[in-house]
Amino acid sequence: MTYCLALHVNKGIVFASDSRTNAGVDYVATHSKMHTFLFKENRCIYILTAGSLATSQAVINRISSDLETDNTGFNLLKANYLHEIADYIGELSQAQQSKHEAAMKKSNMSAECSFIVGGQLKGQACAIFHVYPQGNYIKASPETPYLQIGENKYGKPILDRVISPSTSLEDAARCALVSLDSTIRSNISVGPPIELAIHTSNDLSGPYQSTFTHNSPMYKSLQKQWNEGLKRAFKRLPRFDWEKPSD
Amino acid sequence: MTYCLALHVNKGIVFASDSRTNAGVDYVATHSKMHTFLFKENRCIYILTAGSLATSQAVINRISSDLETDNTGFNLLKANYLHEIADYIGELSQAQQSKHEAAMKKSNMSAECSFIVGGQLKGQACAIFHVYPQGNYIKASPETPYLQIGENKYGKPILDRVISPSTSLEDAARCALVSLDSTIRSNISVGPPIELAIHTSNDLSGPYQSTFTHNSPMYKSLQKQWNEGLKRAFKRLPRFDWEKPSD
Repeated sequence: MTYCLALHVNKGIVFASDSRTNAGVDYVATHSKMHTFLFKENRCIYILTAGSLATSQAVINRISSDLETDNTGFNLLKANYLHEIADYIGELSQAQQSKHEAAMKKSNMSAECSFIVGGQLKGQACAIFHVYPQGNYIKASPETPYLQIGENKYGKPILDRVISPSTSLEDAARCALVSLDSTIRSNISVGPPIELAIHTSNDLSGPYQSTFTHNSPMYKSLQKQWNEGLKRAFKRLPRFDWEKPSD
Repeated sequence: MTYCLALHVNKGIVFASDSRTNAGVDYVATHSKMHTFLFKENRCIYILTAGSLATSQAVINRISSDLETDNTGFNLLKANYLHEIADYIGELSQAQQSKHEAAMKKSNMSAECSFIVGGQLKGQACAIFHVYPQGNYIKASPETPYLQIGENKYGKPILDRVISPSTSLEDAARCALVSLDSTIRSNISVGPPIELAIHTSNDLSGPYQSTFTHNSPMYKSLQKQWNEGLKRAFKRLPRFDWEKPSD
Protein backbone atom coordinates (compact mmCIF):
# COMPACT_ATOMS: atom_id res chain seq x y z
CA MET A 1 0.00 0.00 0.00
CA THR A 2 0.93 3.62 0.44
CA TYR A 3 0.21 6.53 2.69
CA CYS A 4 0.33 10.10 1.37
CA LEU A 5 -1.19 13.25 2.79
CA ALA A 6 -1.42 16.98 2.19
CA LEU A 7 -2.31 19.62 4.77
CA HIS A 8 -3.58 23.01 3.65
CA VAL A 9 -3.12 25.66 6.34
CA ASN A 10 -3.32 29.45 6.12
CA LYS A 11 0.43 29.79 5.64
CA GLY A 12 0.72 27.22 2.82
CA ILE A 13 0.69 23.50 2.14
CA VAL A 14 2.58 20.48 3.48
CA PHE A 15 2.89 17.38 1.30
CA ALA A 16 4.23 14.09 2.67
CA SER A 17 4.50 10.55 1.36
CA ASP A 18 5.95 7.16 2.20
CA SER A 19 7.95 5.19 -0.38
CA ARG A 20 6.99 1.53 -0.02
CA THR A 21 5.38 -0.33 -2.88
CA ASN A 22 4.44 -3.96 -3.09
CA ALA A 23 3.10 -6.36 -5.64
CA GLY A 24 2.15 -8.95 -3.03
CA VAL A 25 4.13 -9.42 0.17
CA ASP A 26 6.89 -11.18 -1.74
CA TYR A 27 7.73 -8.19 -3.90
CA VAL A 28 8.30 -5.12 -1.79
CA ALA A 29 10.20 -2.20 -3.27
CA THR A 30 10.91 1.51 -2.79
CA HIS A 31 9.53 4.14 -5.14
CA SER A 32 8.96 7.84 -4.69
CA LYS A 33 5.32 8.84 -4.69
CA MET A 34 5.94 12.59 -4.64
CA HIS A 35 6.30 14.39 -7.96
CA THR A 36 7.04 18.10 -8.10
CA PHE A 37 6.68 20.32 -11.15
CA LEU A 38 8.25 23.66 -10.30
CA PHE A 39 8.13 26.59 -12.69
CA LYS A 40 9.78 29.23 -10.57
CA GLU A 41 7.92 32.49 -9.99
CA ASN A 42 5.04 31.10 -12.09
CA ARG A 43 3.59 27.93 -10.58
CA CYS A 44 4.49 25.12 -8.15
CA ILE A 45 2.58 21.85 -8.61
CA TYR A 46 2.88 18.79 -6.37
CA ILE A 47 1.42 15.37 -7.09
CA LEU A 48 1.21 12.43 -4.65
CA THR A 49 0.13 8.98 -5.84
CA ALA A 50 -1.40 5.81 -4.35
CA GLY A 51 -2.63 2.63 -5.98
CA SER A 52 -1.32 0.91 -9.10
CA LEU A 53 2.28 1.99 -9.63
CA ALA A 54 1.99 1.27 -13.36
CA THR A 55 -0.97 3.64 -13.69
CA SER A 56 0.57 6.39 -11.58
CA GLN A 57 3.92 6.22 -13.41
CA ALA A 58 2.13 6.31 -16.78
CA VAL A 59 0.19 9.41 -15.69
CA ILE A 60 3.34 11.16 -14.45
CA ASN A 61 5.19 10.24 -17.65
CA ARG A 62 2.38 11.65 -19.73
CA ILE A 63 2.31 14.87 -17.68
CA SER A 64 6.05 15.27 -18.31
CA SER A 65 5.86 14.50 -22.02
CA ASP A 66 2.89 16.83 -22.50
CA LEU A 67 5.15 19.61 -21.20
CA GLU A 68 7.97 18.78 -23.59
CA THR A 69 6.09 17.98 -26.75
CA ASP A 70 5.01 20.89 -28.88
CA ASN A 71 1.36 19.93 -29.06
CA THR A 72 -1.96 21.68 -29.09
CA GLY A 73 -3.32 19.83 -26.05
CA PHE A 74 -3.41 20.71 -22.39
CA ASN A 75 -0.39 20.74 -20.09
CA LEU A 76 0.56 22.00 -16.65
CA LEU A 77 1.72 25.34 -18.03
CA LYS A 78 -1.50 25.96 -19.92
CA ALA A 79 -3.72 25.54 -16.84
CA ASN A 80 -5.51 28.72 -15.79
CA TYR A 81 -6.72 27.17 -12.54
CA LEU A 82 -5.52 24.35 -10.30
CA HIS A 83 -8.82 22.50 -10.67
CA GLU A 84 -8.10 22.15 -14.39
CA ILE A 85 -4.98 20.22 -13.43
CA ALA A 86 -7.02 17.95 -11.12
CA ASP A 87 -9.38 17.34 -14.03
CA TYR A 88 -6.47 16.64 -16.40
CA ILE A 89 -4.95 14.09 -14.01
CA GLY A 90 -8.37 12.42 -13.65
CA GLU A 91 -8.64 12.10 -17.42
CA LEU A 92 -5.10 10.73 -17.84
CA SER A 93 -5.72 8.24 -15.02
CA GLN A 94 -9.02 7.06 -16.49
CA ALA A 95 -7.48 6.69 -19.96
CA GLN A 96 -4.61 4.63 -18.58
CA GLN A 97 -6.94 2.42 -16.50
CA SER A 98 -9.23 1.83 -19.50
CA LYS A 99 -6.30 0.77 -21.63
CA HIS A 100 -5.40 -2.09 -19.29
CA GLU A 101 -8.81 -2.83 -17.82
CA ALA A 102 -9.57 -6.04 -19.71
CA ALA A 103 -6.14 -7.57 -19.08
CA MET A 104 -6.16 -6.56 -15.40
CA LYS A 105 -9.62 -8.06 -14.91
CA LYS A 106 -8.40 -11.37 -16.35
CA SER A 107 -5.69 -11.41 -13.68
CA ASN A 108 -8.19 -10.32 -11.00
CA MET A 109 -6.15 -7.16 -10.39
CA SER A 110 -6.91 -3.46 -10.30
CA ALA A 111 -5.26 -0.62 -12.22
CA GLU A 112 -6.96 1.96 -9.99
CA CYS A 113 -4.96 4.90 -8.73
CA SER A 114 -5.65 7.89 -6.46
CA PHE A 115 -3.86 11.24 -6.54
CA ILE A 116 -3.44 14.27 -4.36
CA VAL A 117 -2.56 17.29 -6.48
CA GLY A 118 -2.04 20.81 -5.26
CA GLY A 119 0.17 23.83 -5.11
CA GLN A 120 -0.20 27.36 -6.38
CA LEU A 121 -0.46 29.29 -9.64
CA LYS A 122 0.83 32.88 -9.63
CA GLY A 123 -1.79 35.33 -8.38
CA GLN A 124 -4.09 32.60 -7.11
CA ALA A 125 -4.62 30.92 -3.75
CA CYS A 126 -3.04 27.60 -2.70
CA ALA A 127 -5.28 24.54 -3.04
CA ILE A 128 -5.14 20.76 -2.75
CA PHE A 129 -7.36 18.21 -4.51
CA HIS A 130 -8.03 14.50 -4.09
CA VAL A 131 -8.47 12.90 -7.52
CA TYR A 132 -10.41 9.64 -7.18
CA PRO A 133 -9.71 6.52 -9.30
CA GLN A 134 -12.90 7.38 -11.23
CA GLY A 135 -11.35 10.67 -12.35
CA ASN A 136 -13.55 13.05 -10.34
CA TYR A 137 -12.10 15.09 -7.48
CA ILE A 138 -12.73 17.13 -4.35
CA LYS A 139 -10.89 20.10 -2.83
CA ALA A 140 -9.89 20.40 0.82
CA SER A 141 -11.68 23.12 2.77
CA PRO A 142 -11.08 25.06 6.02
CA GLU A 143 -13.46 22.62 7.76
CA THR A 144 -11.35 19.63 6.64
CA PRO A 145 -7.98 21.10 5.73
CA TYR A 146 -6.27 17.81 4.93
CA LEU A 147 -6.43 15.05 2.32
CA GLN A 148 -5.14 11.48 2.58
CA ILE A 149 -4.72 8.66 0.07
CA GLY A 150 -3.79 5.02 0.67
CA GLU A 151 -3.63 3.62 4.22
CA ASN A 152 -5.29 6.65 5.78
CA LYS A 153 -6.83 5.37 9.00
CA TYR A 154 -3.86 4.77 11.33
CA GLY A 155 -2.61 8.32 10.93
CA LYS A 156 -5.95 10.14 10.97
CA PRO A 157 -6.53 10.56 14.76
CA ILE A 158 -3.49 12.85 15.21
CA LEU A 159 -4.59 15.02 12.26
CA ASP A 160 -8.07 15.34 13.74
CA ARG A 161 -6.58 16.50 17.02
CA VAL A 162 -3.91 18.91 15.74
CA ILE A 163 -4.62 20.32 12.28
CA SER A 164 -6.68 23.47 11.71
CA PRO A 165 -6.16 26.31 9.22
CA SER A 166 -4.28 28.32 11.85
CA THR A 167 -1.67 25.58 12.43
CA SER A 168 1.83 26.78 11.48
CA LEU A 169 3.55 25.20 8.47
CA GLU A 170 6.21 23.70 10.72
CA ASP A 171 3.64 22.18 13.10
CA ALA A 172 1.71 20.85 10.09
CA ALA A 173 4.94 19.26 8.82
CA ARG A 174 5.69 17.69 12.22
CA CYS A 175 2.10 16.43 12.37
CA ALA A 176 2.46 14.88 8.91
CA LEU A 177 5.65 13.12 10.06
CA VAL A 178 3.92 11.80 13.21
CA SER A 179 0.94 10.65 11.14
CA LEU A 180 3.26 8.80 8.75
CA ASP A 181 5.34 7.37 11.58
CA SER A 182 2.25 5.96 13.35
CA THR A 183 1.19 4.34 10.09
CA ILE A 184 4.64 2.91 9.41
CA ARG A 185 4.70 1.35 12.90
CA SER A 186 1.28 -0.28 12.49
CA ASN A 187 1.31 -1.38 8.85
CA ILE A 188 4.27 -2.97 7.08
CA SER A 189 2.90 -1.99 3.67
CA VAL A 190 3.85 1.63 4.45
CA GLY A 191 7.55 2.43 4.83
CA PRO A 192 10.33 4.99 4.67
CA PRO A 193 11.93 7.02 3.24
CA ILE A 194 9.42 9.75 3.95
CA GLU A 195 9.37 12.64 1.49
CA LEU A 196 8.29 16.05 2.70
CA ALA A 197 7.62 19.27 0.80
CA ILE A 198 6.59 22.52 2.47
CA HIS A 199 5.12 25.11 0.13
CA THR A 200 4.83 28.60 1.62
CA SER A 201 1.84 30.53 0.32
CA ASN A 202 2.79 33.13 -2.33
CA ASP A 203 6.39 31.97 -2.43
CA LEU A 204 6.83 30.55 -5.92
CA SER A 205 10.60 30.22 -5.61
CA GLY A 206 10.13 26.56 -4.68
CA PRO A 207 9.42 24.53 -1.55
CA TYR A 208 11.49 23.25 1.33
CA GLN A 209 12.01 19.60 0.46
CA SER A 210 13.54 16.83 2.49
CA THR A 211 13.74 13.05 2.57
CA PHE A 212 13.81 11.22 5.90
CA THR A 213 15.13 7.70 6.38
CA HIS A 214 15.17 5.76 9.65
CA ASN A 215 18.66 7.15 10.15
CA SER A 216 17.86 10.81 9.59
CA PRO A 217 18.63 12.68 12.85
CA MET A 218 15.43 14.79 12.62
CA TYR A 219 13.23 11.72 12.07
CA LYS A 220 14.98 9.67 14.75
CA SER A 221 14.66 12.50 17.22
CA LEU A 222 10.98 13.05 16.33
CA GLN A 223 10.23 9.32 16.77
CA LYS A 224 11.96 9.25 20.13
CA GLN A 225 10.38 12.46 21.42
CA TRP A 226 6.91 11.41 20.28
CA ASN A 227 7.19 7.97 21.81
CA GLU A 228 8.40 9.41 25.11
CA GLY A 229 5.75 12.14 25.02
CA LEU A 230 2.98 9.60 24.44
CA LYS A 231 4.23 7.44 27.29
CA ARG A 232 4.35 10.48 29.56
CA ALA A 233 0.79 11.43 28.52
CA PHE A 234 -0.30 7.83 29.10
CA LYS A 235 1.20 7.77 32.60
CA ARG A 236 -0.79 10.88 33.54
CA LEU A 237 -4.17 9.40 32.61
CA PRO A 238 -6.71 9.18 35.46
CA ARG A 239 -6.62 6.17 37.79
CA PHE A 240 -9.49 3.81 38.46
CA ASP A 241 -11.13 4.13 41.88
CA TRP A 242 -9.29 1.18 43.35
CA GLU A 243 -5.81 2.26 42.29
CA LYS A 244 -3.52 4.08 44.65
CA PRO A 245 -2.85 7.61 43.34
CA SER A 246 0.85 6.88 43.01
CA ASP A 247 0.40 3.63 41.09
CA MET B 1 -19.52 -0.22 12.03
CA THR B 2 -18.10 -1.23 15.35
CA TYR B 3 -14.85 -1.31 17.22
CA CYS B 4 -14.18 -3.97 19.86
CA LEU B 5 -10.89 -5.14 21.32
CA ALA B 6 -9.47 -7.52 23.89
CA LEU B 7 -6.03 -7.28 25.51
CA HIS B 8 -4.49 -10.35 27.11
CA VAL B 9 -1.78 -9.44 29.61
CA ASN B 10 -0.09 -11.52 32.29
CA LYS B 11 -2.50 -10.34 34.98
CA GLY B 12 -5.69 -11.05 33.02
CA ILE B 13 -7.80 -9.76 30.14
CA VAL B 14 -9.42 -6.45 29.27
CA PHE B 15 -12.45 -6.41 26.97
CA ALA B 16 -13.83 -3.17 25.52
CA SER B 17 -16.48 -2.30 22.93
CA ASP B 18 -18.34 0.64 21.46
CA SER B 19 -22.14 0.59 21.09
CA ARG B 20 -22.98 2.22 17.77
CA THR B 21 -24.77 0.26 15.06
CA ASN B 22 -26.00 1.44 11.72
CA ALA B 23 -27.98 0.10 8.82
CA GLY B 24 -26.90 2.89 6.49
CA VAL B 25 -26.16 6.40 7.74
CA ASP B 26 -29.88 7.09 8.10
CA TYR B 27 -30.44 4.40 10.70
CA VAL B 28 -27.98 4.72 13.53
CA ALA B 29 -28.76 3.06 16.85
CA THR B 30 -27.16 1.95 20.11
CA HIS B 31 -26.71 -1.73 20.94
CA SER B 32 -24.39 -3.45 23.37
CA LYS B 33 -21.75 -5.60 21.70
CA MET B 34 -20.38 -7.11 24.91
CA HIS B 35 -21.98 -10.29 26.22
CA THR B 36 -20.83 -11.88 29.46
CA PHE B 37 -21.63 -15.39 30.60
CA LEU B 38 -20.49 -15.67 34.21
CA PHE B 39 -20.69 -18.94 36.11
CA LYS B 40 -19.08 -17.89 39.36
CA GLU B 41 -16.11 -19.90 40.59
CA ASN B 42 -16.42 -22.10 37.49
CA ARG B 43 -15.97 -20.09 34.29
CA CYS B 44 -16.16 -16.49 32.99
CA ILE B 45 -16.81 -16.12 29.27
CA TYR B 46 -16.89 -12.82 27.38
CA ILE B 47 -18.05 -12.35 23.79
CA LEU B 48 -17.63 -9.19 21.66
CA THR B 49 -19.34 -8.88 18.28
CA ALA B 50 -18.88 -6.91 15.03
CA GLY B 51 -20.69 -7.12 11.70
CA SER B 52 -24.31 -8.03 11.03
CA LEU B 53 -26.31 -7.31 14.18
CA ALA B 54 -28.94 -9.86 13.13
CA THR B 55 -26.32 -12.62 12.91
CA SER B 56 -24.59 -11.69 16.16
CA GLN B 57 -27.87 -11.44 18.09
CA ALA B 58 -29.00 -14.80 16.70
CA VAL B 59 -25.72 -16.39 17.80
CA ILE B 60 -25.98 -14.90 21.31
CA ASN B 61 -29.63 -15.99 21.57
CA ARG B 62 -28.67 -19.49 20.59
CA ILE B 63 -25.81 -19.58 23.11
CA SER B 64 -28.29 -18.55 25.83
CA SER B 65 -30.99 -21.01 24.82
CA ASP B 66 -28.48 -23.86 24.55
CA LEU B 67 -27.72 -23.22 28.22
CA GLU B 68 -31.35 -23.30 29.26
CA THR B 69 -32.70 -26.13 27.14
CA ASP B 70 -32.17 -29.63 28.40
CA ASN B 71 -30.51 -30.98 25.29
CA THR B 72 -27.73 -33.33 24.42
CA GLY B 73 -25.76 -30.78 22.39
CA PHE B 74 -22.88 -28.53 23.30
CA ASN B 75 -23.16 -25.47 25.51
CA LEU B 76 -20.86 -23.08 27.36
CA LEU B 77 -20.98 -25.22 30.51
CA LYS B 78 -20.01 -28.38 28.68
CA ALA B 79 -16.83 -26.91 27.15
CA ASN B 80 -13.63 -28.48 28.42
CA TYR B 81 -11.46 -25.87 26.74
CA LEU B 82 -11.96 -22.27 25.63
CA HIS B 83 -11.07 -23.15 22.04
CA GLU B 84 -14.12 -25.42 21.94
CA ILE B 85 -16.23 -22.34 22.63
CA ALA B 86 -14.52 -20.45 19.79
CA ASP B 87 -15.31 -23.38 17.52
CA TYR B 88 -18.94 -23.50 18.73
CA ILE B 89 -19.41 -19.77 18.02
CA GLY B 90 -17.89 -20.23 14.58
CA GLU B 91 -20.37 -23.02 13.83
CA LEU B 92 -23.39 -21.06 15.11
CA SER B 93 -22.28 -18.03 13.09
CA GLN B 94 -21.83 -20.06 9.90
CA ALA B 95 -25.22 -21.75 10.34
CA GLN B 96 -26.93 -18.40 10.82
CA GLN B 97 -25.17 -16.84 7.82
CA SER B 98 -26.08 -19.84 5.61
CA LYS B 99 -29.72 -19.55 6.59
CA HIS B 100 -29.99 -16.00 5.25
CA GLU B 101 -27.31 -16.11 2.56
CA ALA B 102 -29.59 -16.28 -0.49
CA ALA B 103 -31.90 -13.50 0.69
CA MET B 104 -28.99 -11.27 1.74
CA LYS B 105 -27.31 -11.76 -1.63
CA LYS B 106 -30.49 -10.64 -3.41
CA SER B 107 -30.33 -7.39 -1.42
CA ASN B 108 -26.57 -7.09 -2.02
CA MET B 109 -25.95 -7.25 1.73
CA SER B 110 -23.76 -9.33 3.98
CA ALA B 111 -24.72 -11.38 7.03
CA GLU B 112 -21.05 -11.77 8.02
CA CYS B 113 -20.07 -11.37 11.63
CA SER B 114 -16.80 -11.43 13.60
CA PHE B 115 -16.40 -12.31 17.26
CA ILE B 116 -13.82 -11.98 19.98
CA VAL B 117 -14.38 -14.63 22.64
CA GLY B 118 -12.29 -15.20 25.71
CA GLY B 119 -12.16 -15.57 29.43
CA GLN B 120 -11.17 -18.40 31.70
CA LEU B 121 -12.30 -21.88 32.69
CA LYS B 122 -11.46 -23.05 36.23
CA GLY B 123 -7.97 -24.50 36.45
CA GLN B 124 -6.98 -23.27 33.00
CA ALA B 125 -5.20 -20.19 31.68
CA CYS B 126 -6.93 -17.07 30.34
CA ALA B 127 -7.19 -16.84 26.56
CA ILE B 128 -8.80 -14.72 23.84
CA PHE B 129 -9.80 -15.80 20.32
CA HIS B 130 -10.80 -13.97 17.15
CA VAL B 131 -13.55 -15.95 15.37
CA TYR B 132 -13.65 -15.00 11.69
CA PRO B 133 -16.88 -14.74 9.64
CA GLN B 134 -15.86 -18.03 8.02
CA GLY B 135 -16.02 -19.76 11.40
CA ASN B 136 -12.33 -20.44 11.90
CA TYR B 137 -10.38 -18.66 14.63
CA ILE B 138 -7.00 -17.59 15.99
CA LYS B 139 -5.73 -17.09 19.55
CA ALA B 140 -3.78 -14.05 20.74
CA SER B 141 -0.19 -14.72 21.76
CA PRO B 142 2.48 -12.99 23.86
CA GLU B 143 3.95 -11.56 20.63
CA THR B 144 0.60 -9.98 19.70
CA PRO B 145 -1.35 -9.87 22.96
CA TYR B 146 -4.39 -8.07 21.57
CA LEU B 147 -7.26 -8.75 19.16
CA GLN B 148 -9.48 -6.23 17.38
CA ILE B 149 -12.68 -6.54 15.33
CA GLY B 150 -14.49 -3.87 13.28
CA GLU B 151 -12.87 -0.47 12.66
CA ASN B 152 -9.47 -1.54 13.93
CA LYS B 153 -7.00 0.80 12.25
CA TYR B 154 -7.50 4.17 13.97
CA GLY B 155 -6.91 2.71 17.42
CA LYS B 156 -4.05 0.33 16.56
CA PRO B 157 -1.01 2.67 16.83
CA ILE B 158 -1.49 3.27 20.58
CA LEU B 159 -1.81 -0.49 21.22
CA ASP B 160 1.40 -1.11 19.28
CA ARG B 161 3.21 1.44 21.43
CA VAL B 162 1.85 0.52 24.87
CA ILE B 163 0.63 -3.07 25.14
CA SER B 164 2.90 -5.98 26.09
CA PRO B 165 2.24 -8.99 28.34
CA SER B 166 3.76 -7.14 31.31
CA THR B 167 1.34 -4.19 31.03
CA SER B 168 -0.84 -3.89 34.16
CA LEU B 169 -4.57 -4.59 33.84
CA GLU B 170 -5.35 -0.96 34.69
CA ASP B 171 -2.93 0.38 32.07
CA ALA B 172 -4.36 -2.08 29.54
CA ALA B 173 -7.86 -0.79 30.37
CA ARG B 174 -6.76 2.83 29.99
CA CYS B 175 -5.09 1.95 26.68
CA ALA B 176 -8.29 0.29 25.46
CA LEU B 177 -10.24 3.44 26.35
CA VAL B 178 -7.73 5.66 24.50
CA SER B 179 -7.83 3.32 21.50
CA LEU B 180 -11.64 3.50 21.45
CA ASP B 181 -11.66 7.26 22.00
CA SER B 182 -9.29 7.86 19.05
CA THR B 183 -11.54 5.73 16.86
CA ILE B 184 -14.71 7.50 18.03
CA ARG B 185 -13.16 10.88 17.21
CA SER B 186 -12.12 9.84 13.69
CA ASN B 187 -15.04 7.67 12.58
CA ILE B 188 -18.70 8.47 13.21
CA SER B 189 -19.69 4.83 12.73
CA VAL B 190 -18.10 4.08 16.13
CA GLY B 191 -19.69 5.66 19.21
CA PRO B 192 -20.29 5.54 22.94
CA PRO B 193 -21.28 4.21 25.40
CA ILE B 194 -18.06 2.26 25.82
CA GLU B 195 -18.35 -0.99 27.73
CA LEU B 196 -15.36 -2.26 29.67
CA ALA B 197 -14.76 -5.55 31.46
CA ILE B 198 -11.57 -6.37 33.34
CA HIS B 199 -11.07 -10.04 34.12
CA THR B 200 -8.33 -10.76 36.66
CA SER B 201 -6.53 -14.03 36.01
CA ASN B 202 -7.66 -16.85 38.34
CA ASP B 203 -10.42 -14.72 39.85
CA LEU B 204 -13.65 -16.44 38.78
CA SER B 205 -15.85 -14.33 41.07
CA GLY B 206 -16.60 -12.06 38.10
CA PRO B 207 -15.00 -9.05 36.38
CA TYR B 208 -14.91 -5.35 37.05
CA GLN B 209 -17.46 -3.98 34.58
CA SER B 210 -18.28 -0.41 33.71
CA THR B 211 -20.07 1.58 31.01
CA PHE B 212 -18.74 4.99 29.98
CA THR B 213 -20.82 7.66 28.27
CA HIS B 214 -19.55 11.07 27.12
CA ASN B 215 -20.69 12.36 30.53
CA SER B 216 -18.90 9.77 32.68
CA PRO B 217 -16.36 11.64 34.85
CA MET B 218 -13.65 8.99 34.29
CA TYR B 219 -14.09 9.07 30.49
CA LYS B 220 -14.29 12.89 30.34
CA SER B 221 -11.19 13.19 32.46
CA LEU B 222 -9.34 10.60 30.37
CA GLN B 223 -10.28 12.38 27.13
CA LYS B 224 -9.11 15.73 28.50
CA GLN B 225 -5.86 14.39 29.96
CA TRP B 226 -5.02 12.48 26.79
CA ASN B 227 -5.74 15.42 24.54
CA GLU B 228 -3.63 17.74 26.69
CA GLY B 229 -0.87 15.13 26.98
CA LEU B 230 -0.74 14.68 23.21
CA LYS B 231 -0.59 18.43 22.65
CA ARG B 232 2.22 18.69 25.21
CA ALA B 233 4.07 15.86 23.48
CA PHE B 234 3.49 17.53 20.13
CA LYS B 235 4.89 20.86 21.37
CA ARG B 236 8.09 19.13 22.46
CA LEU B 237 8.85 17.63 19.05
CA PRO B 238 12.15 18.71 17.45
CA ARG B 239 12.27 21.95 15.45
CA PHE B 240 13.35 22.32 11.87
CA ASP B 241 16.72 23.99 11.31
CA TRP B 242 15.23 27.36 10.47
CA GLU B 243 12.97 27.61 13.49
CA LYS B 244 13.96 29.54 16.56
CA PRO B 245 14.31 27.15 19.52
CA SER B 246 11.54 28.94 21.40
CA ASP B 247 9.02 28.83 18.55
